[in-house]
Amino acid sequence: MKNSLDPRTGMPVVAMVGGGQLSRMTHQAAIALGQTLRVLATDPAESAALVTADVQLGDHRELADLRRLADGATVVTFDHEHVPTEHLQALVDAGHRVAPGPAALVHAQDKLVLRRALAEAGEPQPAWAQADTADDVTAFAARHGWPVVLKTPRGGYDGRGVFVVADAGEAAALLDQHGTLLVEQRVVMVRELAAQVARSPFGQVAVWPVVETVQRDGVCNEVLAPAPGLDDELATAAQELAVRIADRLGVVGMLAVELFQTAEGIVVNELAMRPHNSGHWTIEGARNSQFEQHLRAVLDYPLGSTAMTAPVVVMANVLGGDTAAEDWAGPGLDERVHHLMAHWPDVKLHWYGKGQRRGRKLGHVTALGEDLTEVRARAVAAARYLSDGVVDDAFAFPDEHSGGAGHE
Amino acid sequence: MKNSLDPRTGMPVVAMVGGGQLSRMTHQAAIALGQTLRVLATDPAESAALVTADVQLGDHRELADLRRLADGATVVTFDHEHVPTEHLQALVDAGHRVAPGPAALVHAQDKLVLRRALAEAGEPQPAWAQADTADDVTAFAARHGWPVVLKTPRGGYDGRGVFVVADAGEAAALLDQHGTLLVEQRVVMVRELAAQVARSPFGQVAVWPVVETVQRDGVCNEVLAPAPGLDDELATAAQELAVRIADRLGVVGMLAVELFQTAEGIVVNELAMRPHNSGHWTIEGARNSQFEQHLRAVLDYPLGSTAMTAPVVVMANVLGGDTAAEDWAGPGLDERVHHLMAHWPDVKLHWYGKGQRRGRKLGHVTALGEDLTEVRARAVAAARYLSDGVVDDAFAFPDEHSGGAGHE
Repeated sequence: MKNSLDPRTGMPVVAMVGGGQLSRMTHQAAIALGQTLRVLATDPAESAALVTADVQLGDHRELADLRRLADGATVVTFDHEHVPTEHLQALVDAGHRVAPGPAALVHAQDKLVLRRALAEAGEPQPAWAQADTADDVTAFAARHGWPVVLKTPRGGYDGRGVFVVADAGEAAALLDQHGTLLVEQRVVMVRELAAQVARSPFGQVAVWPVVETVQRDGVCNEVLAPAPGLDDELATAAQELAVRIADRLGVVGMLAVELFQTAEGIVVNELAMRPHNSGHWTIEGARNSQFEQHLRAVLDYPLGSTAMTAPVVVMANVLGGDTAAEDWAGPGLDERVHHLMAHWPDVKLHWYGKGQRRGRKLGHVTALGEDLTEVRARAVAAARYLSDGVVDDAFAFPDEHSGGAGHE
Repeated sequence: MKNSLDPRTGMPVVAMVGGGQLSRMTHQAAIALGQTLRVLATDPAESAALVTADVQLGDHRELADLRRLADGATVVTFDHEHVPTEHLQALVDAGHRVAPGPAALVHAQDKLVLRRALAEAGEPQPAWAQADTADDVTAFAARHGWPVVLKTPRGGYDGRGVFVVADAGEAAALLDQHGTLLVEQRVVMVRELAAQVARSPFGQVAVWPVVETVQRDGVCNEVLAPAPGLDDELATAAQELAVRIADRLGVVGMLAVELFQTAEGIVVNELAMRPHNSGHWTIEGARNSQFEQHLRAVLDYPLGSTAMTAPVVVMANVLGGDTAAEDWAGPGLDERVHHLMAHWPDVKLHWYGKGQRRGRKLGHVTALGEDLTEVRARAVAAARYLSDGVVDDAFAFPDEHSGGAGHE
C-alpha cells in the first residue's frame, strides 16, 4: 500500500475528489492538522479551489485525472459520491488507499444496492422494491398504497431524482425516462433525523448526538443539535444503527445516516459517506468537527472527542434567494455581512464563495446557546437575512440609512 | 480610498504581509468569512504559503512588491512588524487601506517610540531612557540600580535584541554594536500577562479576558486563560489600559499589550499590532478567535463576541526539540501525531508545516476544561511529547509496540 507523506512537511497529503464547500471546510481542518489537502476541481472558481493551494483541475469521471490526483497522496477521499466504482477499484488495484473504499461507497451511490444491503442486515427501512416496469410499481402500490415514491438509484441529491407518484401512468413515464427505479412506500413521518459516525480502518468509531434535520423543498434548511425532545432510547438506537451500518459496510471516514422518525420508531432514508450538511454544526458545536474527524478517520488516526460545546446548537443554511442576481436591488453581499455581524455578534458565519443562484447552498450560520427557541430564532433570522436581505418579523432592524430625520 | 472586492466572490481581499503561522491561521478564519487572503511570502515553503491559494512571492522591504500586493486588495495588513514605515506611508498615499496604519504601527516597531508615547499618555511602564552612550546607561543605573535591561529599539522578538547588562563595559560593547538603545529598569515581576483588544476604524473595541503568558528563555511557552487568580480590579485595569492604548494610538486590527505584573500593579512591556501568540487559545477557547476578529477589524466589520467557551483554556507551544533533525532517532512526526491523538482525544492540535529547528515555534496545542491543574498538565504534556517524543512523568504511556507478551 502506498503511503506517501508530503516531503515539505513530513505530514499526510489528503486528496479529495470534488471542489465544493465540503472540501473547502475540510481544508480548514487540514490546515490545523498540518496536512496538505489536494483538491480535484472541475473549475478554478469552485468553492474549495478558491482557497486551497494544491488544486488539480480535472474530471472525476476520468480515470487518468483520478490517477494524477492519487499520485503521491497518502489517501484519496471524496466530497461527493459521483466517482464511478470501477475507477475507484482501479486506484485500489494500483495500491492507492481510497477511503471509503468502492465496496462501501457503492451503498451511498446506489439506492438499490443500499436497500438490498439493509434488508440482508435486517435494519429498519421503508418497504421497497426494484421497479423495472409500471406493473412492478402497480403491484407494489397494491400492497402499500398510492402514492408511492420513485427514486433514481444513482445521481440524485437535494431532492433531485425523487418523485412522488400517484398512479401507474406517471410511473410509466418516469421508467421510460430513467430506466430501472427504486419504488418505496411513502413513509408517514414525524420528522427527519440524522446520525453521524466516523469510522477508521482500525475499526474505531466516534458518534455525535443525533440531530433533527429540517428540510424545505427537499433541501436541508436547518439542523437542530441535539434533536429536540428525542427520547434517550431512540437516540441510542439511532446511534447504534449508524455504528452497525458503518461497521457492516466497512465505511472509512464520515457516515451520515439520514433517518425518518415515524410513530413506530426510525427507518433509514439514505446514506452519505463524507462530511455532510447535517454535521456542519460540529465546527463550533462539538469539540471535533466532522471535517477534522473525516481526516483523522481516512488517515487511520485516533478519533477525537465528539462532546458538544453548548447545550443547544442550530445550523441554518443560507440558500440563494428568489431574486435573480441581475434583478437584485437590495444591499450587496458585503453590506449584508456587515449587518449580520452587527446584529448577531455571536452567530458564526460560513460563506462558500459561490455565485448566487436560487436555492443554491451559499453558506451557513451556526448559533449556540441554552434555549432552543432563542437559538433557533437567531440562526434562522440571520440565515434568512443573509440570503435575501429580508428582515424577519421576529426582530427589529434599525434603519442605518435613515439618518437626518429631525434635522430640518 | 480604494476598496476593491474579489470579483469572483463579491467579498473582500485581505492582503497580509508575511507568510508565517499567523497568516496561516488567519487564512482559516478568512475561509469561513468567504474572504480571499492574499499572502506576501518570501518562500513558497513558508507556513501560510503551503495552504493559501493567493500567494505572492516578494520582499516586505521592497516597495514594488508591496504595491503589487496591495493592488486590487481591500486592505493591507501584517503578520509581523518588519515593513518599513515609509513604504506603508507610500501605500496610504497611493490610496490603499493599510491596517494598522503606519502612525500606529510604529509603536510596535520601535520600542523608543512606544516608551515616549506611553510616557506622554501617563500609562504605567518601567523606568526607561534613551541610551546613546555608556554614560547614559551609567547615569540611568545610578538612579535605578544594576543590572539594567538594554533593548534594540527595532527588530527584536522572542527574546532577541534584549540584554541584561551588569556594568558599563557590557553596555559600551552593545552600544558599539547596535547604536542607540533603550535602557530599562529591570522589573521585579510576579509574572507576565497579556491583554488583547481588537479595534475597528469605526472605533468599536472588543477585549478578551486577560491571560497569563509563561515564558521560557524569552519565548512564550504557555498561555493560561483567564490569568489564574488575577483579581477583578487588576484584570479590568489591564483591559481598560489596552483599550486606551488602542484608542490613543489609533490601532486598527488586533493589539496585544504585553504586561509585567509587579507587586504594585501592571506595567507595559511591549505591543504587537497583529494576531499574537498570546491569543492562539481563542481559536477554540472564545466564541470568536483573534484571527477572525483581526479580519473583521481591519475591514471595519462589526466585531464578534469574545465570550470564552470553557472556564479554563490553556495553550502550549510546540517548540523544536534539542535534537537536530539529522540526529533524530525517535518516532517521526506523523507517528507522534498518532500517539498524541490516541492519548489526548480532546486536545486540539495546530501544526504549522515548518521545518524542525531548536526552539522554533512548530505548532501549538489547546486544552479546555474546568480545572486549571488538569487542563494545564494535559496541554503541556501533549506539547512536550509532540516536540521531542519525550513522555512526561505525569502520565503513563502504554507501549503499543510491545504486543505479543504472554503469547508464547
